[in-house]
Amino acid sequence: MKLTLIQMKIAEDKALNLARAEALARRAEGSDVIMLPEMFCCPYHNSAFRENAEAEGGPVTEALSRIARENGAYVIGGSMPERDGERIYNTCFCYAPNGERVAKHRKAHLFDVDIEGGQRFRESKTFSAGTEPTVFDTPFGRFGVVICFDIRFPAFIRELKGIDFLAVPAAFNMTTGPLHWELLFRARAVDGQMFAFGCAPARDENARYVSYANSIAVDPWGRVIARADEGETLLMLDIDPAEVRSVRKQIPIGNE
Amino acid sequence: MKLTLIQMKIAEDKALNLARAEALARRAEGSDVIMLPEMFCCPYHNSAFRENAEAEGGPVTEALSRIARENGAYVIGGSMPERDGERIYNTCFCYAPNGERVAKHRKAHLFDVDIEGGQRFRESKTFSAGTEPTVFDTPFGRFGVVICFDIRFPAFIRELKGIDFLAVPAAFNMTTGPLHWELLFRARAVDGQMFAFGCAPARDENARYVSYANSIAVDPWGRVIARADEGETLLMLDIDPAEVRSVRKQIPIGNE
Repeated sequence: MKLTLIQMKIAEDKALNLARAEALARRAEGSDVIMLPEMFCCPYHNSAFRENAEAEGGPVTEALSRIARENGAYVIGGSMPERDGERIYNTCFCYAPNGERVAKHRKAHLFDVDIEGGQRFRESKTFSAGTEPTVFDTPFGRFGVVICFDIRFPAFIRELKGIDFLAVPAAFNMTTGPLHWELLFRARAVDGQMFAFGCAPARDENARYVSYANSIAVDPWGRVIARADEGETLLMLDIDPAEVRSVRKQIPIGNE
Repeated sequence: MKLTLIQMKIAEDKALNLARAEALARRAEGSDVIMLPEMFCCPYHNSAFRENAEAEGGPVTEALSRIARENGAYVIGGSMPERDGERIYNTCFCYAPNGERVAKHRKAHLFDVDIEGGQRFRESKTFSAGTEPTVFDTPFGRFGVVICFDIRFPAFIRELKGIDFLAVPAAFNMTTGPLHWELLFRARAVDGQMFAFGCAPARDENARYVSYANSIAVDPWGRVIARADEGETLLMLDIDPAEVRSVRKQIPIGNE
């Protein structure tokens, strides 16, 4: 399975971000699965979430579906502020190579933290929380999709039954990133004996919220197989899904 | 809370091991809590487990109770092969400073692995599995106790309700140790926002099962605050239990 994580720069302007995502995806030619970062279509702060919120069927989901069709690849569409009536969710839409939507995950655990001398944020000012675990099947195996802060909830991750790959569009920051980013991806990979992929926005030191970046891929042994630095980059990986079954057989701890 | 992890050498002879544990505990003077390694009273292999199995009230538990009384400390008594009728368990007995037994944990997840080109072991040849999560309260906070392979089961760890400290007598090996030892202690500490302590036998390259050693203490941020090398050593730590509440307030993820 050829997987590409697109660690892209995020601009203020939505149309620019969509064009950038499409251009970068073209460079990922030959990929079976393409993954984008959390909030790839707008900056990460509450007023930008509200200004850029749109319902399914708008320019963002249209662009994601087009990326899937043009590349003949599954697309795990990072996330976007999804409007649904009065509510806004932090949502990841996923598409099959034919452009059909195969899954949608609404971030279930909102990022409300207040770290002494470090990061503060309250997503719940804007977003409502999703409630459902999200999986979809591909010829390579089953993907589970969660968003960023969701990864801190192992009981929720375990509700993603039978997955081979955990896909996490995310945007850790300069406090929690150095502390927990790599650790959490390795932990979820070892607990679930599965691959874990994290795709983050490139770092912009001038942004109101500074992304830690460091997009990452971890194998079912918990070994880091690729990790980006802070700049815009594509991580193009060749993944052997059979490793999942192999590890589960060697250390049987009930994962199926 | 002054905590001492005793990473001790294990001899063939049970009486020698008990005497060694008592002597090392005397060097931990002033400790509030003393912790011993998994199978501190006999070598780690199935025939030694059977030969050294004894019921509660025998020489091993008597020695543990005495260590608690003589030091005026809580003792988390590593583990021993506990005979109960026809069955043998891998059991950790815990004592209060007055020598009374306050908890007993029977390893709930037996170590049955077969790693290609690496470690093989089948504890289930000898042991029966416990079923209960185990906690006990102290003036410093609540301890949860699990043994070694149990740490790979996050859902089981989460059954240890309201704990501040996760105590894990353990003996990883030269395959799983480098891969997962530190990762699993940091993961459990971050998931539960609690301290996690691992106490292992010192390494003996000539043993049939070679302990990874590397006894470890991790804080509720997931930071390693102490880690031993492979030799016999005492890790003497000064722990501030208030850090648990502080971290849970700064990153609220439902831990109480």
